Amino acid sequence: MFPRTEVASLAARRHALSARLSGVVAVVHAGQASARNYAANAYPFRASSHFLYLVGMPLERAVLVLDEQSSTLFAEEPDADDALWHGARPTLADLQVATGCDAVRPLGELERHLEPLRARLAALLPQDAASVARVSALVGRPYEPGGGARVADERDGLLSDAVIEQRLVHDLAAQAQLRAAAKASAEAHMAGMRATRSAKTEAEVCAAIVGELYRRGMADAYGPIVTVHGEVLHSHSHDNPLRPGDLLLCDVGGESPEGWASDITRTWPTSGRFSPTQRAMYGIVLDAQLRAIDKVRPGVRYRDVHETAKRATVEGLCHERVLRGDVDGLLERGAANLFFPHGIGHLIGLDVHDMEDLGDRAGYAPGRTRSDRFGDRYLRLDRDLVPGMAVTIEPGFYQVPAILADAKLCGPIEADLDRERLAAFSDVRGIRIEDDVLCTQGDPEVLSSAVPKRADLVEALLG
Amino acid sequence: MFPRTEVASLAARRHALSARLSGVVAVVHAGQASARNYAANAYPFRASSHFLYLVGMPLERAVLVLDEQSSTLFAEEPDADDALWHGARPTLADLQVATGCDAVRPLGELERHLEPLRARLAALLPQDAASVARVSALVGRPYEPGGGARVADERDGLLSDAVIEQRLVHDLAAQAQLRAAAKASAEAHMAGMRATRSAKTEAEVCAAIVGELYRRGMADAYGPIVTVHGEVLHSHSHDNPLRPGDLLLCDVGGESPEGWASDITRTWPTSGRFSPTQRAMYGIVLDAQLRAIDKVRPGVRYRDVHETAKRATVEGLCHERVLRGDVDGLLERGAANLFFPHGIGHLIGLDVHDMEDLGDRAGYAPGRTRSDRFGDRYLRLDRDLVPGMAVTIEPGFYQVPAILADAKLCGPIEADLDRERLAAFSDVRGIRIEDDVLCTQGDPEVLSSAVPKRADLVEALLG
Repeated sequence: MFPRTEVASLAARRHALSARLSGVVAVVHAGQASARNYAANAYPFRASSHFLYLVGMPLERAVLVLDEQSSTLFAEEPDADDALWHGARPTLADLQVATGCDAVRPLGELERHLEPLRARLAALLPQDAASVARVSALVGRPYEPGGGARVADERDGLLSDAVIEQRLVHDLAAQAQLRAAAKASAEAHMAGMRATRSAKTEAEVCAAIVGELYRRGMADAYGPIVTVHGEVLHSHSHDNPLRPGDLLLCDVGGESPEGWASDITRTWPTSGRFSPTQRAMYGIVLDAQLRAIDKVRPGVRYRDVHETAKRATVEGLCHERVLRGDVDGLLERGAANLFFPHGIGHLIGLDVHDMEDLGDRAGYAPGRTRSDRFGDRYLRLDRDLVPGMAVTIEPGFYQVPAILADAKLCGPIEADLDRERLAAFSDVRGIRIEDDVLCTQGDPEVLSSAVPKRADLVEALLG
Repeated sequence: MFPRTEVASLAARRHALSARLSGVVAVVHAGQASARNYAANAYPFRASSHFLYLVGMPLERAVLVLDEQSSTLFAEEPDADDALWHGARPTLADLQVATGCDAVRPLGELERHLEPLRARLAALLPQDAASVARVSALVGRPYEPGGGARVADERDGLLSDAVIEQRLVHDLAAQAQLRAAAKASAEAHMAGMRATRSAKTEAEVCAAIVGELYRRGMADAYGPIVTVHGEVLHSHSHDNPLRPGDLLLCDVGGESPEGWASDITRTWPTSGRFSPTQRAMYGIVLDAQLRAIDKVRPGVRYRDVHETAKRATVEGLCHERVLRGDVDGLLERGAANLFFPHGIGHLIGLDVHDMEDLGDRAGYAPGRTRSDRFGDRYLRLDRDLVPGMAVTIEPGFYQVPAILADAKLCGPIEADLDRERLAAFSDVRGIRIEDDVLCTQGDPEVLSSAVPKRADLVEALLG
């Protein structure tokens, strides 16, 4: 069902990264499973995205060593217990065929291999502490778990920049993975819509969506958000009952067996029909999304996509008479951020926030930094778009009580905010509409277009 | 749907543990979420079982300090970002009501609280490395992640033994949790049976089972095993197609919202009907299971339950003419272990292998150690049963090619093994039948009895 990345594509990635190494030797550790409640009961193993990008397989504890000439994979050999407990593991010869690395060697030879290269080593870190400690010992520098974003060493910086530059632009194999992940995740959302008719709780809809992902052999790319309280941006509880009149916000995406992510949000009425006030606000968010998507073109600065969505939101709120006055002035005074207090989106790839392990070094072009302004400071990406870059576009409208009660945030637009009119929209706590969008030479490609978003089409699917 | 453990029960647990402390002060850290592919994309947080046992809620980074007089919970206070990103967090006053701890204090006061107690501190460790490092700093001794089983310090040993002694016997609130977890997991298995009729892959059945768990607000208690290769004991891939004639082995259990586990295995024919050879072997495993369950009574040594299942297996194989000769002699020469190469079960509670984080200190009574014999060495429990103890009973029959080709293992019974007759059972690769069983004063209580296991009842459900 899912496309397989061919060995030639993996080799091409390794060659391309080799060419950017300037004498540095890259140590890329796959990571190992993290214990849940005891060592043998671990969370499902998810290999480091850098490793998956270059090797294509989640090989626990394996390490890829890449220099300007060659790639050597160090991996565990099958052992006698495998057959009984875990199933046959590939031999090193199997791995060489499957990955196309120049050489595959037993893990025990890694230290000896790296010893003469010590002065040239740099690392791409996995997430688990045990593997990070191992990398520290191998490279001879102390790394911290989660410390990929705090690069102190020059070689590590060079390696990080090289891999960022490369992973920012998805090759055809990567695009195929993202397309397949988005398509399957779209099917999962539609299963969630269909399940809503008979569901009594958020958990039931969530189970329908993730069940559909699991049926297809996918994992969650991130913790599913399925909530009637869309105004809580990252709510991961699914305990609430569904009441007639609720909007249900579902932000769920699967990742392909090779680890490529999807990230889709839809918001639909639990009753099957939007109320007039819900329909109006939904229309504003959808308009903002469509206008933002249309900006996903080569050379456009992503921050401008964000500003486009903010402008559309304020225009819509003016049209609905929630806000009044001059749009530029309202934007200047933070009107959009009160109702849309997050960024328009982020990179997507092997990570749902692609390369966030490397911090803003990945999301922000050199010389660009985060805004200080509430809302805008959560913008995770500020680069100029290029063909092959994949981003999410996810505007929203939320009535967050804590924001609307905050005099410092609301003060500048209080005179232009019709709170009485806003109260008419009390059945709209939170709406978000999100798609995965590939920047191309021409029109943007909406990878997740299979799941309906026009209000009437959503209603038709809800039945 | 799930029972809630009342504050009085939590307080009773804390008081009982206090009474066992002999001057030691217990530091019980809840742990924190482990990063998956970057810090903000974490695995679902699962608090330490020791913390859940004593506090009842998964409070990330919180620490319970328990001495002979009192319990003090140190927890994070709500912060301003919560309302926007994660939803309102309980205040410390809320936590005091919800947990019944004598005092609830801000996490920032923990060091100062512990400083004068330094010489008396001992720890129950969470699993994640960051929290273990924090505990090391708090207690002033280096602990290792996953190091709960390697207790070097006398106070840590005393605390471990105290908590083991207590958690070995489930109080009524714990029993209610286990009962509810098993009942819901039984429903999930039945959903899996119903889904088998139309399913084409292992993944589809797995999705039906875990979907049913998620619908009920449960998490997986462990990585689901849903496989047509039951002879691989812990196969976690779900990629295989279902073929007519396959047996599907499903070992899946959910945990209740408070963290209590279930662990159920059923094996059923994908076609809906057992073949005669499958039915015969299934009958042997079921007989072994029923005889083993009947042994779950106060005062019985768990190793004898294991031996009972082994004997039943060998008797059954003699009856089917796969083995011949004297049962005692066959058992002595390891005949059972060839086909049933694991233990009959383990403790179950807040962990699916309860307290395995503390190693054999939990599962083995003082003075008892693991057997050296293949198969028997995987027996995880060797204690005398007492009322309130919960165990799994999970015999199996497997044809593991690597075992059956091992001259050292098979040599002693080769003359009594009819390989030609065994070959007639080639459509039986692996069968396991597992229930969660509570030891009572009277007959054992099978917590997971709702899911059918008699062959004809399984067939009836498969339809």
